[in-house]
Amino acid sequence: MSTIRSDLAWSTRDRITVRGKDLPGEILGSLNLGDMAWFELTGKFPDQKQSRMFNAMAVTLVEHGVTPSALAARLTFLGAPEAMQAAVAAGLCGLGSVFVGSMEGVAKLLSEGKDAQTIIAENKRIPGLGHPIHKPVDPRSVRLFEIARETGYYGRYCHTMEELARLKKLTLNATGAIGALACELGLDWRAVRGIGVMARAVGLVGHLLEESRQPMAEAVWHKIEAEASEHLKK
Amino acid sequence: MSTIRSDLAWSTRDRITVRGKDLPGEILGSLNLGDMAWFELTGKFPDQKQSRMFNAMAVTLVEHGVTPSALAARLTFLGAPEAMQAAVAAGLCGLGSVFVGSMEGVAKLLSEGKDAQTIIAENKRIPGLGHPIHKPVDPRSVRLFEIARETGYYGRYCHTMEELARLKKLTLNATGAIGALACELGLDWRAVRGIGVMARAVGLVGHLLEESRQPMAEAVWHKIEAEASEHLKK
Amino acid sequence: MSTIRSDLAWSTRDRITVRGKDLPGEILGSLNLGDMAWFELTGKFPDQKQSRMFNAMAVTLVEHGVTPSALAARLTFLGAPEAMQAAVAAGLCGLGSVFVGSMEGVAKLLSEGKDAQTIIAENKRIPGLGHPIHKPVDPRSVRLFEIARETGYYGRYCHTMEELARLKKLTLNATGAIGALACELGLDWRAVRGIGVMARAVGLVGHLLEESRQPMAEAVWHKIEAEASEHLKK
Amino acid sequence: MSTIRSDLAWSTRDRITVRGKDLPGEILGSLNLGDMAWFELTGKFPDQKQSRMFNAMAVTLVEHGVTPSALAARLTFLGAPEAMQAAVAAGLCGLGSVFVGSMEGVAKLLSEGKDAQTIIAENKRIPGLGHPIHKPVDPRSVRLFEIARETGYYGRYCHTMEELARLKKLTLNATGAIGALACELGLDWRAVRGIGVMARAVGLVGHLLEESRQPMAEAVWHKIEAEASEHLKK
Repeated sequence: MSTIRSDLAWSTRDRITVRGKDLPGEILGSLNLGDMAWFELTGKFPDQKQSRMFNAMAVTLVEHGVTPSALAARLTFLGAPEAMQAAVAAGLCGLGSVFVGSMEGVAKLLSEGKDAQTIIAENKRIPGLGHPIHKPVDPRSVRLFEIARETGYYGRYCHTMEELARLKKLTLNATGAIGALACELGLDWRAVRGIGVMARAVGLVGHLLEESRQPMAEAVWHKIEAEASEHLKK
Repeated sequence: MSTIRSDLAWSTRDRITVRGKDLPGEILGSLNLGDMAWFELTGKFPDQKQSRMFNAMAVTLVEHGVTPSALAARLTFLGAPEAMQAAVAAGLCGLGSVFVGSMEGVAKLLSEGKDAQTIIAENKRIPGLGHPIHKPVDPRSVRLFEIARETGYYGRYCHTMEELARLKKLTLNATGAIGALACELGLDWRAVRGIGVMARAVGLVGHLLEESRQPMAEAVWHKIEAEASEHLKK
Repeated sequence: MSTIRSDLAWSTRDRITVRGKDLPGEILGSLNLGDMAWFELTGKFPDQKQSRMFNAMAVTLVEHGVTPSALAARLTFLGAPEAMQAAVAAGLCGLGSVFVGSMEGVAKLLSEGKDAQTIIAENKRIPGLGHPIHKPVDPRSVRLFEIARETGYYGRYCHTMEELARLKKLTLNATGAIGALACELGLDWRAVRGIGVMARAVGLVGHLLEESRQPMAEAVWHKIEAEASEHLKK
Repeated sequence: MSTIRSDLAWSTRDRITVRGKDLPGEILGSLNLGDMAWFELTGKFPDQKQSRMFNAMAVTLVEHGVTPSALAARLTFLGAPEAMQAAVAAGLCGLGSVFVGSMEGVAKLLSEGKDAQTIIAENKRIPGLGHPIHKPVDPRSVRLFEIARETGYYGRYCHTMEELARLKKLTLNATGAIGALACELGLDWRAVRGIGVMARAVGLVGHLLEESRQPMAEAVWHKIEAEASEHLKK
């Protein structure tokens, strides 16, 4: 039976402690939002190189335009503008196996420590490879690995991932690069999907602010509704 | 009728542009996650002072221990561990009028530009004031206003909020301080709840990682179930 | 301080009791899904007339084609087909003040017991009136009030609502009719939005089954993405 | 590439058609909520036996007391009482692989048409078997199969499931029985999780109504928070 116990934070009348650090005194003003995410996931403050690498990974995933999750959030906001949190939640619900979730698969796969040849022999489909638009290279992966070299985090997992892309003749996409870098940084693969979830939450707030000023959801609805039911009205 | 148009991002085969900037070339490695959130909300890169102030505001809201939203996320994860994104979404759904949403009320109220006396005369209940535990001061508000003074963002909205707390003899809580600072920074009040939503998404990922390693949701369920139905089993 | 106590259900090794009734022995095979909803909300089995009226109200709200919530659910399913529950959840998140939530407003307003003239004098905007397509009458309202007359549930609340529509020269829409009927049936206004939420959950499952067989979400995404970013690519 | 097309419903100024039937004229007053769910999933009105069987299956899943999903919904409602739809959504997000989702596994497995011996040989873990409380029998399964015999829907899938339970010496739980019955009724296994999702939406509305009258979420929060952080405050 599990125990009811959490080590993340506690507070008293005049103190708030997060993972052993005083929130007002030691964290606020010291950590940026990406550093704080690192701290949540690892229990340690990142050094400068970890901060640079991890923030770049998270920032990569914030905004990619009018994606399915951005559309879901906007369409939800149309019906419940008083509950922006629920519109963000709706957008996040779609970050599963097809999109952002693939990072988790990459991190899990690479964390087993096998080489590219073995991985190809054992897996019909390899996550983190292929992109519908960005071919032959995903410019985000290129840049992330550049930062990895600068910070000393380009290692065997990045190498394996590049090898896989070369052998399979597929684009090493951003989720593939990020999955590999999560391994280089020693992050738990179970936290990797979460990097995408938190980053997209940031981006979805951006979309909802734009939607509140320059709405498009209603037009989307009417356009798609008309097209989807055209054959029924004949 | 609204138009289907978004200015946030677009991509071609070899380029990804976010709000006019090249994502790999100009953003990755330059902005941290909080800076990127600022960029999403304002369309501009923050200067150093804005970055420091805004990141501190967001970081404040990431983690506050075993809150209702953390519990909702953990209980959701218990049933669907394969869909961490949905557990984060469940946790976010509760960031409404009672908890994080109050920041929005503060920002909206202060953005009307009235002084403390007028605000008190016109409103029975003022958001951002009062805290069940942190009395007479919320140490987060103290620290945030300290950073505001350092960065030059302590201004009339902060002053009004402190005046309100003094006159009503209530704690100026963290959401009150953040609502005021959002006004100082010139942020749209419609984006303010979103700062809490994105920050809590970060914290919820931390809770779910802890839950996956050191589960408590099942024990919570059994304990509460037993207590809630005790009177029925007699 | 609230107490941890729920009267809804409890179970032992060989018994499951819901609101005092034996689930297998007294409920299964006796109640249909709408009756069970009534039982959940009122604690009593519906009689035949209540069953007919309440089921008609709930059934009205199940399916209305390609609505914003159906689109949000489908777009979510595109990214996380392994988590259908999260796609339904995403669709439900938008049932707020603009769409289904208006039923709650009607029920709350009518439950105060005022007549049409007073209501008009006191309220600038009256929920449950007006429809973008169904003019001058919403055929669902007509039919629901017909069933209300057959079952003896056409009373003062229905009358007031029709009076309001006549005086304001607006369509009495389905949410207006259902809000009035909820009052006639003596349902708590706080449960009324929930009738829409449960009904739409049924409809969203229908949409997701269709989406899994005959997908449209990906085409919606690409079409809208192209149109939304056209001006940026020039 | 997928086509933007849905056959579920369409409407004009004076007509609303759902799957080819006139909603006001042919559906309202004729179908109960469970029948409507059947109609959504199959495109046909159920006959009396199908209606009885299917409604019993759905009703089984509505209410099971203070479950993790009910708790998640209540804790969400505590923070956002103005957005009941989001609290239901939060509760639904946890209906994944561990709880309700297992019905889908049963239906998929049985729909392959193999006998019990083969299924045991090929699968280490069989969904729909075992229950923490209901041993050696789940009274819901017994009753559902009784109704199945009455309606003529007890067939080979039910038989296989009972055989599996006997051979593995495990309780045939309600999700196992429902998964088998879904196969007997010819329902698509991809819709089976959805039966649980819609049924639980009904139950969650019941919980939220009780929570609004007799709140327990705040007490749950304080109790668990205290216990979870006790070791930190020493």
